[in-house]
Amino acid sequence: MLPSDRLNAAIATHHPAASACMSDLGRAMYYPQGVAAQAQEAKGARINATIGQLTDGQGGALALPSMAARLVGLPLEDAVLYAAQGGRRDLREAWRRRLVRTAGDRISLPLATAGITHGLSTIADLFAGPDTDVLLPDPAWGNYRHLFATRRAAPVYTYAPLGPDGFDPGALRVALQARARPTLLVLNFPSNPSGYTPTVAEADELVEIIADSPVPLVVMTDDAYQGMVWEDGLLEGSMFDRLLHLDPARVLPVKVDGATKELFFFGGRVGFVTFGATGAGAAALEEKALSVMRATTSATTSFSQALVLDALSSPDLDAQCATLLSELRARYRALRDGLRSVGLTPWPYNSAFFALVHSDRDPEVVRRELLAEGIGVVAIPEASAIRLSYASVDASVMGELVSALAAHLAPR
Amino acid sequence: MLPSDRLNAAIATHHPAASACMSDLGRAMYYPQGVAAQAQEAKGARINATIGQLTDGQGGALALPSMAARLVGLPLEDAVLYAAQGGRRDLREAWRRRLVRTAGDRISLPLATAGITHGLSTIADLFAGPDTDVLLPDPAWGNYRHLFATRRAAPVYTYAPLGPDGFDPGALRVALQARARPTLLVLNFPSNPSGYTPTVAEADELVEIIADSPVPLVVMTDDAYQGMVWEDGLLEGSMFDRLLHLDPARVLPVKVDGATKELFFFGGRVGFVTFGATGAGAAALEEKALSVMRATTSATTSFSQALVLDALSSPDLDAQCATLLSELRARYRALRDGLRSVGLTPWPYNSAFFALVHSDRDPEVVRRELLAEGIGVVAIPEASAIRLSYASVDASVMGELVSALAAHLAPR
Repeated sequence: MLPSDRLNAAIATHHPAASACMSDLGRAMYYPQGVAAQAQEAKGARINATIGQLTDGQGGALALPSMAARLVGLPLEDAVLYAAQGGRRDLREAWRRRLVRTAGDRISLPLATAGITHGLSTIADLFAGPDTDVLLPDPAWGNYRHLFATRRAAPVYTYAPLGPDGFDPGALRVALQARARPTLLVLNFPSNPSGYTPTVAEADELVEIIADSPVPLVVMTDDAYQGMVWEDGLLEGSMFDRLLHLDPARVLPVKVDGATKELFFFGGRVGFVTFGATGAGAAALEEKALSVMRATTSATTSFSQALVLDALSSPDLDAQCATLLSELRARYRALRDGLRSVGLTPWPYNSAFFALVHSDRDPEVVRRELLAEGIGVVAIPEASAIRLSYASVDASVMGELVSALAAHLAPR
Repeated sequence: MLPSDRLNAAIATHHPAASACMSDLGRAMYYPQGVAAQAQEAKGARINATIGQLTDGQGGALALPSMAARLVGLPLEDAVLYAAQGGRRDLREAWRRRLVRTAGDRISLPLATAGITHGLSTIADLFAGPDTDVLLPDPAWGNYRHLFATRRAAPVYTYAPLGPDGFDPGALRVALQARARPTLLVLNFPSNPSGYTPTVAEADELVEIIADSPVPLVVMTDDAYQGMVWEDGLLEGSMFDRLLHLDPARVLPVKVDGATKELFFFGGRVGFVTFGATGAGAAALEEKALSVMRATTSATTSFSQALVLDALSSPDLDAQCATLLSELRARYRALRDGLRSVGLTPWPYNSAFFALVHSDRDPEVVRRELLAEGIGVVAIPEASAIRLSYASVDASVMGELVSALAAHLAPR
């Protein structure tokens, strides 16, 4: 019996859909009972000679004074010593409490990852490969193809519910009905690069379509921009929340999110992976993911974890976030008004950091022309569009941005 | 022509050994010219609407006050905004200056990784797979098998130059001469778990053996514990330094190291990958590695990078390190004296954080017995040994540690 057999059996029993979608790599993974596991057992030992780090002998940190001087208000141990594999337990529990508010408690204990990309990459390792199809939104964050097609060699298909004229959930139905093999479906709302979040009715329709899938699914929600929604009547929380009641024989929901955008901690590199699973099924899925993480990054940055936990524990976290969210909303409105004033019609957008503007001219040419004038935008050639990230543009210069864009989009 | 063909052609021309050793995944990788690349081009633009992060519109950070309050003496931007893919250029240049002291300048610009494991994992992705053999030291850090065999499905072979009675470089010759396919050879000095560093003469012999390899090699030096050498006459610097003159048709040296141990920043998760390569060959290898990193973690923690750069820029860095190194040396001596006084003969050890003590009894049983007494050690069953990490044990209790160990190692 291989060490991975025990995990695979538990997953087959409790999450048949996950079992059907698992890649060869996913099947092979198990957490090695090596030093890290032995060190975990020895936590709190009177004399601890297990772990390869310098301490004062009592678990206290011995750090370079130049580093210690840059930290304030946190125990030095929380910054310079190793954190537990998979993340600090108190941080993981704090993030779970945050998710439970909208998801309820049928979810696993989140694993902390080295940023959201690391969460996506971990799920790609487990559920994407030459034998598993991947269904991506189109347009999508460019790194998805790199993660799933180039790195994992998975056959990638797309669904395109959003276009310049509106959002059609039926596009997902058509794409799913064409699938003949177990599939990893990626949902991303609020979306990058489109900045679109479905209405509640559209979200309900997406859930029905997923429930009708002809093939077993792992549905990964990339919730990087969760909570950044600027209009009323839109999906609040995550699509993950709405998939948790589905039959595990048909669907495993997986949520990837993090502090990167939600807590404005872009450089902190703290993401989370949470399964729509409990009990023995959750334990097996968690060990699979932890096993991938052990082989990619091992522990995640201690200081970043401490800072995120500290923020989550802050009684006025919501108020602190509200200030920054209202700044973002002001930029969203400035962009909307600006685009209207110069007569440009963007794709539908209502959330996150972005808007797409259609370009009849080659978007890459437009991008280069604007760059020569000191204005940076992103070209999305596959959507014939320019992506504007209004999150990093002050509202006072939004008019200048859209005027320049309008000038270069005009036929010449 | 595939986007990866350009890189593969450059590597085949300048580093035939690397080309022969590359995995299928390594061959497929190239850096996608997506948002990250476009954002890099737009750095310094007057209006920058490329990147998905919240700024004040001038590139300044807008952070949660609770997080900002924990940081002192560093620009907020250096902590909470994204760092460049592959690491801050100033940090990479500072680490290169550190390496050049012993390696000379025939090396690439180091890439910053999310800890040393991430560096090892990146090299495993590029050079280990079902079609490439991997040659590991035995005993070795347990995670090597997880990284190379379980995750990358590479056939793993071992060489065992060290035993309870001494170090024999000839063991590497025997293992290399048995290779029939391109091979990724892993060197790890100072070694985990043995704490052994070869003498200068032994190191010279290893270089000769590597030069005589019958198959092309990528030689990856895991230099996590570089500089932590407690006796005279041992290899200083890295084996990497001594391999740089070898014919690129036969050998590509790759160095993986980091701030984790060298700067006592265990939880910081800053590692580096450096190739024994320059010019177009280095550029192609660097892009391959960057491409793996983009698909595993994307950017690396900004704050950790800032702290490492800050430490490297400190005029008294060597003096700060010397204080901690002398503490480690004192623990090494306390362990050595303690083992002698209880009549235990460890494997040869002279460096890093560790010593191995042979156990006639099942090491796992000994470990559990000691744990029940509040003493944590690591069992290495494959070497019939107990690993002691004296780095985390104060010198004053070393006597108690070795007495307890002696009592449990005795036949009963």
